[in-house]
Amino acid sequence: MLKEAQVEKALDILSRGAFLTTGKDGKYNTMTIGWGNIGVVWGKPTFTVLVRSSRHTYGLIESSGEFTVSLPLTDMKDALNLCGSKSGRDIDKFQAADLRLQPGRTVNTPVIAGGGLHYECKVVYKQAMQPELMSDAMKKQWYPQEDYHTLYFGEITAVYSD
Amino acid sequence: MLKEAQVEKALDILSRGAFLTTGKDGKYNTMTIGWGNIGVVWGKPTFTVLVRSSRHTYGLIESSGEFTVSLPLTDMKDALNLCGSKSGRDIDKFQAADLRLQPGRTVNTPVIAGGGLHYECKVVYKQAMQPELMSDAMKKQWYPQEDYHTLYFGEITAVYSD
Repeated sequence: MLKEAQVEKALDILSRGAFLTTGKDGKYNTMTIGWGNIGVVWGKPTFTVLVRSSRHTYGLIESSGEFTVSLPLTDMKDALNLCGSKSGRDIDKFQAADLRLQPGRTVNTPVIAGGGLHYECKVVYKQAMQPELMSDAMKKQWYPQEDYHTLYFGEITAVYSD
Repeated sequence: MLKEAQVEKALDILSRGAFLTTGKDGKYNTMTIGWGNIGVVWGKPTFTVLVRSSRHTYGLIESSGEFTVSLPLTDMKDALNLCGSKSGRDIDKFQAADLRLQPGRTVNTPVIAGGGLHYECKVVYKQAMQPELMSDAMKKQWYPQEDYHTLYFGEITAVYSD
């Protein structure tokens, strides 16, 4: 699974922007992420994403317990910009960014069609970051609004590209 | 940094066993690990390792705040077996496994000489896993002794190979 996971390419693309999609019962949302971890934990290949408690995505991933990450292999800058600056509370980002969904293979959550390299993940452990464990510098730089991240450790159940 | 990090190769090797070295003031220890994550978090390339509270390494990494991971590019199975089955509380593993240390380039912690691919890391965030956040299956499979892991997120300050 790790060899198929194209980890090197995935992290390189991720740092320039990828789509984190989650939701359930036909109600999905996607947001742009630039952070994440790939590895092996609890004997499983894992993709770890971070979601701030203020995000619309937060309620959705808490409720669904699964997510997909779609890493663009082509230029999707406009869609990434939109999905990183608007909230799914206010608009339908798929419509606004002209993104089409495609059913997941191993999870109920869809992936972004044409979105390149897809990871499907089931959350196996999650934990909210705690401000009392952070340095003052970290709090000041990344959490001035006190909207801390929750870490979602997802078992990778499928990896494939368009 | 991520391109230099040889992530794909690193995770492939890691899943077969690597050396996690930590300590301070000339007192170091190494243990065998098979789990870990590599990625980008807080704008930095990161290597995340997990250490159980029961390990000798736990006290050392808590006190030093840094670690190195050495990923064998050659067969070091005997040394990995020893460093994964004995405790640094009882023996000097470096002597017992015939491992030589080599000074770190960016951290005070040394790396395993001839240990292949080296990551030097400074802990930027750490958090103990909480049993109440785990599924019963996870607790039963991985934590029957209740010796939970602490997650150490290390900023990668150097990557190089022998």
